[in-house]
Amino acid sequence: MWSYQAPLREMRFVIEDVLRAPDAWRATPAFADLDADTAAEVLQQAARFATEVLLPINAAGDREGCRLEGRDVKTPAGYAAAYAAFVEGGWPALACDPALGGQGLPQLLNAALYEMLVATNHGWTMYPGLLHGAYETVKAHGSAFLRDTYLPKIASGEWLAAMALTEPQAGSDLGLVRTKAEPRADGTLAVSGGKIFISGADHDMSANIVHLVLCRLPDAPPGTKGLSLALVPKFLPDGTRNAIHVDGLEHKMGIHGSATCVLHYEAATGWLVGEPNRGLAAMFLMMNAARLHVALQGLGHLEMAAQNARRQAHERLQLRAAVRPAGAAPAAADPIAWHPAMRRTLGNLQAMAEGLRVVAYRAALRLDEAEHDEDPARREAASAEAALLTPVLKAFATEQGFRGASDALQVWGGYGYVREAGIEQTVRDARIAMVYEGTNEIQAIDLLQRKVLGSMAPAFDRLLDALAADADGSDAGRALAAQVQAAREVVAAVRARSADPEAALAVADDFLAGCAHLLLAWAWGAIERAATQARERDAAWMDERIRLVRHGREWLLPQATVHWARVRAGAALGAVAA
Amino acid sequence: MWSYQAPLREMRFVIEDVLRAPDAWRATPAFADLDADTAAEVLQQAARFATEVLLPINAAGDREGCRLEGRDVKTPAGYAAAYAAFVEGGWPALACDPALGGQGLPQLLNAALYEMLVATNHGWTMYPGLLHGAYETVKAHGSAFLRDTYLPKIASGEWLAAMALTEPQAGSDLGLVRTKAEPRADGTLAVSGGKIFISGADHDMSANIVHLVLCRLPDAPPGTKGLSLALVPKFLPDGTRNAIHVDGLEHKMGIHGSATCVLHYEAATGWLVGEPNRGLAAMFLMMNAARLHVALQGLGHLEMAAQNARRQAHERLQLRAAVRPAGAAPAAADPIAWHPAMRRTLGNLQAMAEGLRVVAYRAALRLDEAEHDEDPARREAASAEAALLTPVLKAFATEQGFRGASDALQVWGGYGYVREAGIEQTVRDARIAMVYEGTNEIQAIDLLQRKVLGSMAPAFDRLLDALAADADGSDAGRALAAQVQAAREVVAAVRARSADPEAALAVADDFLAGCAHLLLAWAWGAIERAATQARERDAAWMDERIRLVRHGREWLLPQATVHWARVRAGAALGAVAA
Repeated sequence: MWSYQAPLREMRFVIEDVLRAPDAWRATPAFADLDADTAAEVLQQAARFATEVLLPINAAGDREGCRLEGRDVKTPAGYAAAYAAFVEGGWPALACDPALGGQGLPQLLNAALYEMLVATNHGWTMYPGLLHGAYETVKAHGSAFLRDTYLPKIASGEWLAAMALTEPQAGSDLGLVRTKAEPRADGTLAVSGGKIFISGADHDMSANIVHLVLCRLPDAPPGTKGLSLALVPKFLPDGTRNAIHVDGLEHKMGIHGSATCVLHYEAATGWLVGEPNRGLAAMFLMMNAARLHVALQGLGHLEMAAQNARRQAHERLQLRAAVRPAGAAPAAADPIAWHPAMRRTLGNLQAMAEGLRVVAYRAALRLDEAEHDEDPARREAASAEAALLTPVLKAFATEQGFRGASDALQVWGGYGYVREAGIEQTVRDARIAMVYEGTNEIQAIDLLQRKVLGSMAPAFDRLLDALAADADGSDAGRALAAQVQAAREVVAAVRARSADPEAALAVADDFLAGCAHLLLAWAWGAIERAATQARERDAAWMDERIRLVRHGREWLLPQATVHWARVRAGAALGAVAA
Repeated sequence: MWSYQAPLREMRFVIEDVLRAPDAWRATPAFADLDADTAAEVLQQAARFATEVLLPINAAGDREGCRLEGRDVKTPAGYAAAYAAFVEGGWPALACDPALGGQGLPQLLNAALYEMLVATNHGWTMYPGLLHGAYETVKAHGSAFLRDTYLPKIASGEWLAAMALTEPQAGSDLGLVRTKAEPRADGTLAVSGGKIFISGADHDMSANIVHLVLCRLPDAPPGTKGLSLALVPKFLPDGTRNAIHVDGLEHKMGIHGSATCVLHYEAATGWLVGEPNRGLAAMFLMMNAARLHVALQGLGHLEMAAQNARRQAHERLQLRAAVRPAGAAPAAADPIAWHPAMRRTLGNLQAMAEGLRVVAYRAALRLDEAEHDEDPARREAASAEAALLTPVLKAFATEQGFRGASDALQVWGGYGYVREAGIEQTVRDARIAMVYEGTNEIQAIDLLQRKVLGSMAPAFDRLLDALAADADGSDAGRALAAQVQAAREVVAAVRARSADPEAALAVADDFLAGCAHLLLAWAWGAIERAATQARERDAAWMDERIRLVRHGREWLLPQATVHWARVRAGAALGAVAA
């Protein structure tokens, strides 16, 4: 039976013991009213929503999928009702400004909420998943009219949002976008053009849908410097339906409950958001948060795969174990959880999930600091660290979500390949996160070429210093110090090859994976330290954390060696052939 | 557009230049009439069948799937007609004994055929995929009545076969099988019991279906030593329908065109195959060949993913490349094949496919020697080497088939997640091969615990010696020698821990992966040598082979270090918990 036990205790341990977020909240006026117990209560309610509302419609939504009826998209049974309950519970507004009807809670709690939503229903979560990005964009760049008309409805979740970027010829390369926006005499824009892969461009879950459309004004320069952003609602303020036409739905490998639309705008009415030709800058504002959310999709799937595999491995009896627990009764076959190959898989999955959770939540904490810290220098430093952690997390956590789900599938054997077990849906759903919101390869280039070797070199050094500061004389500390050292060395090695314009590009993926392992080494050390300190609270539970992170250090961390070695070597890739 | 260019030239290069199979054929009376050109002609016809008959019904079969109508299973449109053409072409009998209506061709050519069938249509290939195993089993263990009645029909493919092993409680642990076989006065058996995950237990593709059923005679001892094998046909010799009842079809992640049946026998009439309680031994006869076929599924998917990704990467234009070919015309965006991250992915896929093809075909060559060599000592040595190569190939090639398909999906970006591109079906179809015919974890235990540390230790040493003999002073030779050395060291390290009953079990997966890299190091070296020698035939094509295997050595082989290091370290896994 596919099920979900929200890892509330693990989350609380990370938030309170590992990251000590309540200390940060106390020092931040925006969160001064928040304490650990309140936060825990919020997460408990979130867990309840995810488990009781979203999980029951997850498998059915995968089977049913979405359909286009006339010009309207219908979502699977139960989706709209679940969303109504989500709005009713105030969840869309969790991290929005109280002045705009939000709850003013940290991104950190929003991250934990999001992890649970995706774990229980990735397809459904795609719909509210874009709300916060739209909220931030309109809040920062919208005119007074747009803010008054759209922001409260977006903050409350009453109206959902869609991000319309991709076109057939313009995926990773948004500079090739062609959709046109012609100014009209009344100050609106007439938006025309085709878009593809637009999640939630139409559906039956909210009364209106707010599209943010990447487009070009007349005479805009070519490339990304000529992109503008338009807000194009499904229903105009006077109640008429706008000229947004869904031409079809994609048939995807997974997230069948999410409507992925092919559509075109036919002189649809819109309004400019932000400055002309500055559309990409307006969208980049929400990029870190959006990419962190995608990383949390990887984490959610990994957690779901790990905990269900653990249960399955304890229930399924096959073959006698080489070593049986003292006093175990004689049996024809033992739980497969007793077999070393399965213990190792389960350890890998859980150590990875618990380590990545720490890193992902650290990034969320930095986003909160970047927005709410009173000290501008600390805001800037936090923002820079978040910008460095985000591509690592987006690429690495999504890969682990997919690979971890596939590794977990082995625990079920043949049953895992069959729909009823649940895990094959996780494998299929998890796969998309490696592709969208910037492919994982784009993340790697962003990290190494644009940031570490570019303008954020000092911030990367500061991050390494901060991590290295946690490297004590323990095994965990030595492992961490070795990773930091390796990172410094390979950056120098790549710099030394800078005459080759492809030097960084060829090894960017390995550099990112190396950094992910470095961050895991830090996270596992931090967990071990926190668990040791909190051991008196519950020795058995804390010892299990310590066992897991040691498992991670011994069985998973060695993989870093290969990544660093490949970056260091920078072998030839073969010439570009026409 | 999803398409297939059968890698006939690569296959021929491996068969003729790398493995020098035609020399072996000349020295083997059974193949004395076979020469390189005849073999190439056979493969060309096979490529035509795969490309023209199987590929066109692959995607449609995935969408349509199988259905149960009353008591009969219906396969997707075109499946039955394709199978009729397959029988008409004599393909089922390719490697069967000419005395039984077969064509008497080597397993090596059958392997190449099978690679092409799976690449173009895995779901369909499941049906004839069990024929050869059934043929070998009935040929070796069937009574004169069974051989006379069933063997010619199986050899010709006129009747298809199914292997009925798994039961709900008995997957990896076949000792738990409960299906009963009661002897009747007329010498037949009354077979009763339920089976699951039975591929092709019923369908509409052949006039009869021959089930080989693992079952227990009355008073059989418990466990695997009490298993017998029964032949239970869908239609009895007198034309009446046997009591085989399909209760349902599984809804699987992939290979939708393959009917995976839940069924029960209700005092169905059958005949004992082989000795009572020796059913597992009778089935093991075909195990190496069957597992090699599963490895070829991985290779087929990997080849398909690699060549389609290559085409896509040359067609898709996104972003300007850092380095452009000399003389390339100015353009807004370049083929993504020019971007280093994509060149690397394409190189990985192709180097892996070309290396694995050499190893897999080497195993097939050993199966031919094991059956047809005139020297009994050489037969035995070949059989032992095949027994060692098989689990490595089954586990590693299937993992590469799945991972490679997923890596390839990145080349399409968002398009790859959508059905139309074709690659997501490959990801889904490829996943099953890691599970069935013994999970990959079972293969690893078979290799290390049962064979290398067990009765086949001398054979493993001989294999290492044989591979090491190819290690010359070149870069490839040094890389190979280092791998052989590592393998010897880790075997000694695991032996030194033999007081721990879990010592081998905990590191078996890494040992297998290490051995796979060792075999790849050998294969890449062999390709480089052969390509260098044959360079005058076509310098550009041979240089591309050399470039690819160097890519493999520089970008893929370093992964071996981690696998060997983990085996050497043998870190603790944590105690078994009740």
